[in-house]
Amino acid sequence: MEFTAKQIAQLIQGRVEGDDEVTINTFAKIEESRPGAISFLANPKYTHYLYETKSSVVLVDEDITIDQPVNTTLIRVRNARDCVAKLLQLYESMKPKKNGIDSLAFVSPKAKIGKDVYIGAFAYIGDGVELGDDCLIYPHATIMDNCKLGKGCIVYPNVSIYHETHFGNNVTIHSGSVIGADGFGFAPNEEAGSYDKIPQIGNVVIEDDVEIGANTCIDRATMGSTIVRKGVKLDNLIQIAHNTDIGRNTVMSAQVGIAGSTKVGEWCMFGGQTGISGHIEIGNKVALGAQSGVPGNIKSNQRLIGTPPMEQRKFFKSQALIRRLPELHEQIKTLLKEVEELKKNK
Amino acid sequence: MEFTAKQIAQLIQGRVEGDDEVTINTFAKIEESRPGAISFLANPKYTHYLYETKSSVVLVDEDITIDQPVNTTLIRVRNARDCVAKLLQLYESMKPKKNGIDSLAFVSPKAKIGKDVYIGAFAYIGDGVELGDDCLIYPHATIMDNCKLGKGCIVYPNVSIYHETHFGNNVTIHSGSVIGADGFGFAPNEEAGSYDKIPQIGNVVIEDDVEIGANTCIDRATMGSTIVRKGVKLDNLIQIAHNTDIGRNTVMSAQVGIAGSTKVGEWCMFGGQTGISGHIEIGNKVALGAQSGVPGNIKSNQRLIGTPPMEQRKFFKSQALIRRLPELHEQIKTLLKEVEELKKNK
Amino acid sequence: MEFTAKQIAQLIQGRVEGDDEVTINTFAKIEESRPGAISFLANPKYTHYLYETKSSVVLVDEDITIDQPVNTTLIRVRNARDCVAKLLQLYESMKPKKNGIDSLAFVSPKAKIGKDVYIGAFAYIGDGVELGDDCLIYPHATIMDNCKLGKGCIVYPNVSIYHETHFGNNVTIHSGSVIGADGFGFAPNEEAGSYDKIPQIGNVVIEDDVEIGANTCIDRATMGSTIVRKGVKLDNLIQIAHNTDIGRNTVMSAQVGIAGSTKVGEWCMFGGQTGISGHIEIGNKVALGAQSGVPGNIKSNQRLIGTPPMEQRKFFKSQALIRRLPELHEQIKTLLKEVEELKKNK
Repeated sequence: MEFTAKQIAQLIQGRVEGDDEVTINTFAKIEESRPGAISFLANPKYTHYLYETKSSVVLVDEDITIDQPVNTTLIRVRNARDCVAKLLQLYESMKPKKNGIDSLAFVSPKAKIGKDVYIGAFAYIGDGVELGDDCLIYPHATIMDNCKLGKGCIVYPNVSIYHETHFGNNVTIHSGSVIGADGFGFAPNEEAGSYDKIPQIGNVVIEDDVEIGANTCIDRATMGSTIVRKGVKLDNLIQIAHNTDIGRNTVMSAQVGIAGSTKVGEWCMFGGQTGISGHIEIGNKVALGAQSGVPGNIKSNQRLIGTPPMEQRKFFKSQALIRRLPELHEQIKTLLKEVEELKKNK
Repeated sequence: MEFTAKQIAQLIQGRVEGDDEVTINTFAKIEESRPGAISFLANPKYTHYLYETKSSVVLVDEDITIDQPVNTTLIRVRNARDCVAKLLQLYESMKPKKNGIDSLAFVSPKAKIGKDVYIGAFAYIGDGVELGDDCLIYPHATIMDNCKLGKGCIVYPNVSIYHETHFGNNVTIHSGSVIGADGFGFAPNEEAGSYDKIPQIGNVVIEDDVEIGANTCIDRATMGSTIVRKGVKLDNLIQIAHNTDIGRNTVMSAQVGIAGSTKVGEWCMFGGQTGISGHIEIGNKVALGAQSGVPGNIKSNQRLIGTPPMEQRKFFKSQALIRRLPELHEQIKTLLKEVEELKKNK
Repeated sequence: MEFTAKQIAQLIQGRVEGDDEVTINTFAKIEESRPGAISFLANPKYTHYLYETKSSVVLVDEDITIDQPVNTTLIRVRNARDCVAKLLQLYESMKPKKNGIDSLAFVSPKAKIGKDVYIGAFAYIGDGVELGDDCLIYPHATIMDNCKLGKGCIVYPNVSIYHETHFGNNVTIHSGSVIGADGFGFAPNEEAGSYDKIPQIGNVVIEDDVEIGANTCIDRATMGSTIVRKGVKLDNLIQIAHNTDIGRNTVMSAQVGIAGSTKVGEWCMFGGQTGISGHIEIGNKVALGAQSGVPGNIKSNQRLIGTPPMEQRKFFKSQALIRRLPELHEQIKTLLKEVEELKKNK
């Protein structure tokens, strides 16, 4: 696929400065530029790269001042970052898609498969599964009995989806993730001197437009459903325990863990490795810094960090003072001595 | 499957209050009640749900006082929570089980397969493997050469079990878990300017009644065995390094990490994201709060939290004071000034 | 495979003390000794095990003093630990290797396969893949389109390698790891009230001699490459985000997380559960203790621990004082009272 600067400019309503017939066929970061590529410049701090770039075309924010000659074709746009995202989406959408059901796939005769679906070699589609149109099920994905997936879902290799899981439309699950494994429920049995398993008879419901990274786990509910609501984005290696409810458009970085029965609001953002206790409630638009530890409820509209989470300014002040604790300790010892002295000499 | 209130009451030795012919066919939490479901009430705090429940039957603890009219059938029992666990187990045990060896499975002719075993499509059973009776091996499970599994083991999709791993009876492994991958052993080779791999020739031994969650890793020993003893329950995304020894009935929440050669006692409980150093010893009945960091040995019968772990009361006091460090710092500064002043004026 | 003490001594240039015709066929730790095994003793602290060992041969460091009679054959060497590593490598190299392409594997007719390659049942090799000589691709490994693997690579069961990933020679990936899944890139779209996906069109490049543990994730770059350089060793359950660059011979313990676009130097060592922010730079030979949290750049040649990381001595002092905060708080309160008193009586 090749495009001229002129074609690109039309797509994103930009204005060409330079040769509008130059062609590009790939993307490159401005600091890793090469001929035939399109790059972008949104941060004035990186303007110096523009004067030495080898990329054939560079998208530049309208308000960036250029005060040296450039050897590349510029396309001026209101927001270069948004434009590049749009172009990347276009580029992705033009890639050929896999399709058809591979003869090496296992598809239960009791499954219902929509139109224009891809099912790769060694994919496993169990009894009673319903797959919507345009789904892509990659090799080694396992979709167990009675799961229902909407339209346009993508399930990458080695994903495991346990029985009775429900997906909305346009749900994407990256490799190795496990949806619907048993929640962690055991009751001590004192007579037997062991634990009894509490069967987990609920399921997992994932609504439209959710994307889940690699090797993330979302456990099925004991009863009822573990729910991941519309537009949620989860990174890799995240733990979502049974009976949790994750609100719309909430985003979590890698290695976050949410314990059982916790309710998380909408538009939250959790930094990596954050841990959240079970049976609590987190409001809407709560931002938590990386590695936070959350023992109790949090109200909406707060940016917090730490264990327990506190305002960011307070956290950084406290963190700085932790490093100075030995010094503070010395000061206290000195004070104790001096006050003792003063009391004696009174 | 449908049961009358009367039949349920007989099963769990309860006493019916209301219509004993009403039938139920599923479970529901009391706050998500619906006709045809059985719910339970064990915590008096939730008694108000009872007055508005749509569930057909509710199990209620003997000692809960009911002072408003109820429209549902009650079954009075000594311990509603235990009874519901028992009923759930019964319900699970009545579900039809998969069985037979799928024609799309790979079973080495050198493997020994017990009676009444299920081996799903695309499951892989290597040379010299021994599978006990009543095992369920789901699609895409990989059991490499010379593994031995006892009776009634369940291996979910996409589990990898490396060569020479030994399971007792009734071991359950959820999807994506990896048992017996190489321990992390490398020795710096100064001449070559790189690391040499230390081959990991030991194995993993998992005793009876162990359940392991999804995407958990248990590494094989360098020499000898990494051992997970009878009745241990591990949640998802846990790391158990080489040559560790996890004592009977110990329970760990998600994302815990145990470094190499550490010995953990019996009946311990570790909160999520806890990290434990290598080459140390944790006693019996040690409870560690979430996100604890353990640098050294811990004696038996303690409930600790933090890094390093301390008594819970002390931890929460210290945590509270960390937040107040800026204030304490100001107080120290004031004291220093005032004492200086007092010394001058002496 | 059986060897005499004499043969072993020749291999590792050691000196036999005792019966040089005794034979061994396995390894055992000195504290788990048994007839027919070779053990080693490198730490004088464990010398007492030597007097009661059942192992047939024990490698002993030259400088360890033995002052009681021993019933086993000794081989004296300069460095017993190194020698045992060498013997283990030899032992591993003598084990029969899998080979040939299983008839149940899927190998695209558009893939190029080197000599002496093993491809197990249910392995999936996509279009345009190039596999170097002597690669071992285990059952259920998925290698998607256009990946290139050098010579001698080992890919264990249930590994997922996304399209266009490049491996050098002798790269080993343990089960469940996911290489090249989409980086976590989403931009809020205020009009739509949701997030837009930023397509991740870059790839992952893994250089020679890298070993990656189980269930670890390395995300593909947005543009350009996520790079893991020569000799890097990663343990299990690690998160390496998009566009990171991990320097040569760096080693990370389990559950470490590195956020996007961070550059890590050579010969670093990161303890388990450490978290590192995005868009920062870590120098060469930086050692970070377990559970550290790194918000900003770190210069080369430092041993740090904590959040933010500090010198170890400082960290342990601060940690100790955190435990004593309640006591310090009491002292400050007393001081405030006493100084108030002194001021009054002045």
